[in-house]
Amino acid sequence: MRALTVEPGVAGSDRLREVAEPHRDEGSVLVAALALGICGTDREIVSGSYGEAPPGQPHLVLGHESLGRVLVAPDGGDLSPGDQVVGIVRRPDPVPCANCAVGEWDMCRNGRYTEHGIKGLHGFARDRYRLRPEGLVRVDPGLGDLGVLLEPTSVVAKAWEHVERIGERAVWDPRTVLITGAGPVGLLAALLGAQRGLDVHVLDRVADGPKPALVDALGATYHTTHVEEFELDADVVIECTGAPAVVAAVLAGTARNAVVCLAGVSSPGRRVAVDLGALNREWVLENDVVFGSVNANRRHYEAGAAALATADRAWLSRLLTRKVPIESYAEALERREDDIKTVVSF
Amino acid sequence: MRALTVEPGVAGSDRLREVAEPHRDEGSVLVAALALGICGTDREIVSGSYGEAPPGQPHLVLGHESLGRVLVAPDGGDLSPGDQVVGIVRRPDPVPCANCAVGEWDMCRNGRYTEHGIKGLHGFARDRYRLRPEGLVRVDPGLGDLGVLLEPTSVVAKAWEHVERIGERAVWDPRTVLITGAGPVGLLAALLGAQRGLDVHVLDRVADGPKPALVDALGATYHTTHVEEFELDADVVIECTGAPAVVAAVLAGTARNAVVCLAGVSSPGRRVAVDLGALNREWVLENDVVFGSVNANRRHYEAGAAALATADRAWLSRLLTRKVPIESYAEALERREDDIKTVVSF
Repeated sequence: MRALTVEPGVAGSDRLREVAEPHRDEGSVLVAALALGICGTDREIVSGSYGEAPPGQPHLVLGHESLGRVLVAPDGGDLSPGDQVVGIVRRPDPVPCANCAVGEWDMCRNGRYTEHGIKGLHGFARDRYRLRPEGLVRVDPGLGDLGVLLEPTSVVAKAWEHVERIGERAVWDPRTVLITGAGPVGLLAALLGAQRGLDVHVLDRVADGPKPALVDALGATYHTTHVEEFELDADVVIECTGAPAVVAAVLAGTARNAVVCLAGVSSPGRRVAVDLGALNREWVLENDVVFGSVNANRRHYEAGAAALATADRAWLSRLLTRKVPIESYAEALERREDDIKTVVSF
Repeated sequence: MRALTVEPGVAGSDRLREVAEPHRDEGSVLVAALALGICGTDREIVSGSYGEAPPGQPHLVLGHESLGRVLVAPDGGDLSPGDQVVGIVRRPDPVPCANCAVGEWDMCRNGRYTEHGIKGLHGFARDRYRLRPEGLVRVDPGLGDLGVLLEPTSVVAKAWEHVERIGERAVWDPRTVLITGAGPVGLLAALLGAQRGLDVHVLDRVADGPKPALVDALGATYHTTHVEEFELDADVVIECTGAPAVVAAVLAGTARNAVVCLAGVSSPGRRVAVDLGALNREWVLENDVVFGSVNANRRHYEAGAAALATADRAWLSRLLTRKVPIESYAEALERREDDIKTVVSF
């Protein structure tokens, strides 16, 4: 069967290769790949700057945003052949830390987790894979290909859950949300904000293409003002660009009691001049919170699946701006203007 | 009667003056001042860089860390003549915001609160003052002068409450705490950490004087390692210095899932080079939280009063390193080596 593999650490080592069928030890549920979403992490891995193969193996099968159909499942379990499923990306170490032991592997304390397609575990860019039943989440079959959006939605569902739990440290009645960056994560964060009945504002550099209309369709407001000039006393900020200049502006522009979620992974290496005394003073005197959020556990996948099931499907389908068959995977890895989410089909 | 007043915005305008007895409109409870703690905010006000007089008045009575004895209280209330009491510093606007309306004036949304001795309300540096009953908290009379520590303890009690509520966003089992700065706030934060059974570490520049022994006496560990070289994967950090270099090191050195509370008010004006991309990446990938905490509401004063009531009194008394009569207030405003908390007595 086919698999898209890389040699982690080697730029441009991505190849579509013939590999063996998944080994039974990988799990009792056999899944046929339907679709795979591509994100920045995949491109980082293909560029050789990230990623880790399973122990003792030279290659890593890429892919962590999955959608598949169950082919074989153990009798008496929750899953049946034909179910549409998404694989949970992170898997706790066999000797779990205290957090992983209670299912909060997104909050793993010791870093000894593995991640499909990223860190020490093969991913979902192959015709078939096997998983343990607890590593799979069922999605509404009516979603069709849109189920491939579950992994990024789970990340956003976790971000929102933590925003709300942190906000509830004191009396909490949020009204306005600012989302920086209208990529797939930003747009899904806006969707979940709109589902909560909040006044959602999305800030992005791009004035044309499909993004403004997508934001409008949520009843939200699209802005292209430069981030340093943008003023909105938002109760919640979800920063999805990871761009240091945007992060700097967001950190300096918080409102009283604001909860700022950093959800965009950035690259290190460039120093900017920051008045840390002013920043610290503002954060203290205004009770501001800034937190980072990564990954998601089963609870967040389930919340994400519920959010997708109730979303407008025509809107969701406009997020899938390109579909590329696996044989042409190199095209999927390119970034093109007006791309939101590129999906590889099997 | 005597009052220590300043003209806000005028450096060196501090004077001990004769003023009228407090007006009945200030509240139904008449209190005789026993003691007043001096902190950095008082020095900022005396230097002319902070503070605001009541509307239409040229002077502000200084003082927000109080201890007094009730002289007159309304019949049938909770307070009686002879009670030892501390005044709550912040007072909501007569037309309260949604947060002030439910007693969370420490989280005021619109900034229209007032603060005794700081912002638009006279303080407690006078022989007698009046307050509404709800603006006073009773302290254990056995504490004597030590009750003057309640205001800074309330600030620390709020910081701890928010650390715990924020930590509980996910599974939460903190073990180690790092406190930067062994001033009164840092030492009281260490006390409350030790009362919670945590492994407390206090980092300060000063190797001699009373601080190391005070930290040892809590069963905590005192460190004088340079903050940039200090390594401790603390689950909780309470930053009490406000020094930008310390804040920078704390922000860059967080452990996975760490909750960092910024509790030290710093001065703006000096830019330092920060790799914001690296910082953002670490916060995201490690689920870190950084939040500011200021002021306290009644719940925190009550938690602080309970913490002081159960603390070792000999230990608390070692925090009051100088007591100065009100006539010599200028000496109290000086900062001397080995000072922890300087108290003015009436």
